Amino acid sequence: MTTTASPFADTALQATFASLENPHFLRACLRMGTPYTPLWLMRQAGRYLPEYRATREKAGSFMGLATNPDYATEVTLQPLDRYPLDAAILFSDILTVPDAMGLCLSFAQGEGPRFAHRVADEAAVDRLEVPDMDKLRYVFDAVSSIRKALTLANGKARVPLIGFSGSPWTLACYMVEGAGSDDYRLVKTMMYARPDLMHRILAVNADAVAAYLNAQIQAGAQAVMIFDSWGGVLADGAFQQFSLAYTARVLSQLQRLGPQGQVIPRIVFTKGGGLWLQEMGALDCEVLGLDWTMNLGTARQSVGGATGGPGKALQGNIDPLVLFAPPQSIVQEVKRVLDSFGTTHQGAGVGPSLIFNLGHGINQFTPPEHVAALVETVHHHSRTLRI
Amino acid sequence: MTTTASPFADTALQATFASLENPHFLRACLRMGTPYTPLWLMRQAGRYLPEYRATREKAGSFMGLATNPDYATEVTLQPLDRYPLDAAILFSDILTVPDAMGLCLSFAQGEGPRFAHRVADEAAVDRLEVPDMDKLRYVFDAVSSIRKALTLANGKARVPLIGFSGSPWTLACYMVEGAGSDDYRLVKTMMYARPDLMHRILAVNADAVAAYLNAQIQAGAQAVMIFDSWGGVLADGAFQQFSLAYTARVLSQLQRLGPQGQVIPRIVFTKGGGLWLQEMGALDCEVLGLDWTMNLGTARQSVGGATGGPGKALQGNIDPLVLFAPPQSIVQEVKRVLDSFGTTHQGAGVGPSLIFNLGHGINQFTPPEHVAALVETVHHHSRTLRI
Repeated sequence: MTTTASPFADTALQATFASLENPHFLRACLRMGTPYTPLWLMRQAGRYLPEYRATREKAGSFMGLATNPDYATEVTLQPLDRYPLDAAILFSDILTVPDAMGLCLSFAQGEGPRFAHRVADEAAVDRLEVPDMDKLRYVFDAVSSIRKALTLANGKARVPLIGFSGSPWTLACYMVEGAGSDDYRLVKTMMYARPDLMHRILAVNADAVAAYLNAQIQAGAQAVMIFDSWGGVLADGAFQQFSLAYTARVLSQLQRLGPQGQVIPRIVFTKGGGLWLQEMGALDCEVLGLDWTMNLGTARQSVGGATGGPGKALQGNIDPLVLFAPPQSIVQEVKRVLDSFGTTHQGAGVGPSLIFNLGHGINQFTPPEHVAALVETVHHHSRTLRI
Repeated sequence: MTTTASPFADTALQATFASLENPHFLRACLRMGTPYTPLWLMRQAGRYLPEYRATREKAGSFMGLATNPDYATEVTLQPLDRYPLDAAILFSDILTVPDAMGLCLSFAQGEGPRFAHRVADEAAVDRLEVPDMDKLRYVFDAVSSIRKALTLANGKARVPLIGFSGSPWTLACYMVEGAGSDDYRLVKTMMYARPDLMHRILAVNADAVAAYLNAQIQAGAQAVMIFDSWGGVLADGAFQQFSLAYTARVLSQLQRLGPQGQVIPRIVFTKGGGLWLQEMGALDCEVLGLDWTMNLGTARQSVGGATGGPGKALQGNIDPLVLFAPPQSIVQEVKRVLDSFGTTHQGAGVGPSLIFNLGHGINQFTPPEHVAALVETVHHHSRTLRI
């Protein structure tokens, strides 16, 4: 396999990996070689784990959990204590930014997120502004607290910590709908009828998300991910204008190096965005997340730098529902996904690389012991795909 | 534009168009020239029309409406009386076949479809068989009745009538889930854990759908459409094995000519299937339906026979939510979609062709007067795209 030199300075790369016991996730983000395919799972700290449900019970509510740095630290580490995952992800929600804008986020029992104040009209759009980041202090405190909890006796980090936010478009969906939606009627009505209002919301969201992710990086996040969970509901043309352009606006404002001079990889995940993969390949980020509808071999050819030269690391993409099959079927499906991406390298240069993940968040009814089979198979089988 | 000779015999083509006042939809299905782009709208007979709601009220329930040929005829014709649409589509539901299998379909107020008996285990799968088509007599009676109602004083049909069914996979989703689903957990669990059971369900469904569509053709349907509404929730690999293969099995059993020796075009629509368009291009059908995420120009290049030779007619694909914008914005969006497909021909040969449609069913809250703006713009603007 052809590899080329990393575009990052040696000093920055040294700062990135030096303090990590397990550098494989960050190396794969930067398309550098790893002895096996690193993995983490979207929503790995969540309701499928009984220990999570116990902490959630203590906290009283989802927001009680998310806004308390001690609880957030506790649940962030729970999946790492069960499974040899290669990264931790901050326990939080994609909708903290509009909550800080004063829309007042809550999660009713058994339902999804809901805002007390939805952005329903021009006056509400006019009132929007980038929130004071101090209102999100609890998130940055959680990042610092988790980084401390991940530090081993030798001073190194067990695994790196990923920070995240919803994308400007995805935040706008919830802000205008006031909750989840089947048909996105309210947000699309505003988009088609009053594109000027939608652009104003998205511009504020983009600048707020950038400030939020930069503050997470300052607090210790070692990679950041933008979740464009609802980009895939847009029409061709509208996606580029209302989702992709504002994801790019966030990326253009993110700091490239962390407080120790280390490289901060940026991951963009658009659920249902496979048709726009080539356009996403032009984004100024290191990693593209993929859902299960995309063939990893095709994605590698398209944006993975398969023929040498620049490209994105890819992250994904097994169907989370595979985890409901018995372990021997899970093993087969994991192998099929790894094989579809193909071989990767172990060296210091850069070339095609994969971070294994689900194609979407883990289902709350997933049997925890099935996750163990997935993790073990990824680590074991991917070693046979090294050249 | 390069056009080639139609692969159909002249006598069959003559039988197809002779009895039609408006042959444009069927001509476009067969990639023959038309003076403008024909259109119809998925779910054009539906709740957004006050006259539909009045008939629905009389009928008492959705199934009361669908199983009564007089009512079904009445509502099928309602949108044609409002708008100059180029095709009628049988008023029915995609789930009539599993209802006839004994699963007992109903629609509770404000909710989606629900089966009294879901296919929950191996014994239920074993019991499945192709239903006696006599149980679906009400559908075939509706087809005959609608054909009569569409016949003008000169003996010609105003527009052709499209028959339809859900795809084997889409039927299986509802049969195993028992209702709609957010995560398809039950049907995917069966698919991943017991693929043998899923293949058995899909084989029965495919043979039942084929018999059902053939009976609709015998009763007078002049084109048939397979709705793979949930194919897009499958992972790459699973889609080909569990959805596409069984759509192909249906197609292989469909009669190619109707009772008058006319060609019966076959339309396949997989919502969210854009990533698999090239594979769908190999299906033995005349038309591929597309949702709004797909760029029509790209689709034309990929499967539309853009460079001459064989190809599919394409159907779609404006976002139905565009209809919530004011008419001047609707006009702009319709033009954008037509322009993205590009020019089409007017001649007797075959070449790239488009049937304008929504990318999914019309939303129940759509203002009816907005539909008029869409229809008029399609007919008017597409005349400027003829060469």
